[in-house]
Amino acid sequence: MAKAVSPRGFARERVLEAALSLFAEHGVKGTSLQMIADRLGVSKAAVYYQFHSKDEIALAVIQPVFDDMIRLVRIAEAMSTPEARREAAISGMVEMAVRHRRVSAVFHGDPVIDGLVHSRAELQDTIERLTEILLGPEPDDAGRICMSMLASGVYGSATDPALADVSDEDLHRVLLDCAQRVLPAASKVKA
Amino acid sequence: MAKAVSPRGFARERVLEAALSLFAEHGVKGTSLQMIADRLGVSKAAVYYQFHSKDEIALAVIQPVFDDMIRLVRIAEAMSTPEARREAAISGMVEMAVRHRRVSAVFHGDPVIDGLVHSRAELQDTIERLTEILLGPEPDDAGRICMSMLASGVYGSATDPALADVSDEDLHRVLLDCAQRVLPAASKVKA
Repeated sequence: MAKAVSPRGFARERVLEAALSLFAEHGVKGTSLQMIADRLGVSKAAVYYQFHSKDEIALAVIQPVFDDMIRLVRIAEAMSTPEARREAAISGMVEMAVRHRRVSAVFHGDPVIDGLVHSRAELQDTIERLTEILLGPEPDDAGRICMSMLASGVYGSATDPALADVSDEDLHRVLLDCAQRVLPAASKVKA
Repeated sequence: MAKAVSPRGFARERVLEAALSLFAEHGVKGTSLQMIADRLGVSKAAVYYQFHSKDEIALAVIQPVFDDMIRLVRIAEAMSTPEARREAAISGMVEMAVRHRRVSAVFHGDPVIDGLVHSRAELQDTIERLTEILLGPEPDDAGRICMSMLASGVYGSATDPALADVSDEDLHRVLLDCAQRVLPAASKVKA
């Protein structure tokens, strides 16, 4: 495709879409601004017109996930009992993992994304608040193990390439069922 | 430490131990034979005396996991019903994930290891047979989702750095409990 196309008419969303595809293929580290420009058939300058660094693009890709997460934390924190807060958090976690299946596949376990999240106090704070809701006020080992198993299980299956043919509806329904079966194991051992 | 130490007296196990630590820190791709030699305080030639390539070392690191896996597959395949085969496979998967916690942390999701496993027909065959036992003869979507959730949940929590303080016994007990709770969800929808 032609180089040096005018930045007009190529939207921010097209950059994010191209970046997400490339991140999925090469990891965030293995993707350059030039590769994103090439994928869009525009110049690197045209990409710079929208975003000033690859980190800025990566943050914009994961922002909708964190927007959902902070909403979920606010809803759950306002609930009356630790049990109700935890149930809301798990249901919300399943919903988020399914809705953001493609982004989660990139987001989950990428060292560059992990570094970005750690460097942003507000993202780090959201994760810590969600973890606290999931673990409850005084987590014992059984509760911690169950929650770790649930979180990696839900994200792992939502991003499993072998399940790419499964609809969001089926994935949501079955994961919620699985999560609700595991949940009592985390609670029953608590005082 | 001194260079060019005689290969005598430094065992194969010390190389594998050093390699595993380095793989965990830098990934398999980010680890060189020189780094392994430096960690042991020996020359690269001394490492070559034991292993002829990094791939050979990586394969030797994961071999005990596959030895356990093929034993598990043989035991499960010999059982009389699909339900019994599946239960044995899940119980064995939990046991393996916990016993090989450190190796699994490296093994799980490393692209170099994935490539090595894919290139070895006998390893690939073992994984396929275990997957077939776990999924049962005619897996529907719910069964596939549950098994994906179980496998990534069990391996994810067994390798979760936040659970490094949890004993193998507790981890095994709680993961088995979680897995047994999820299992009926995979089976009940089956004809």
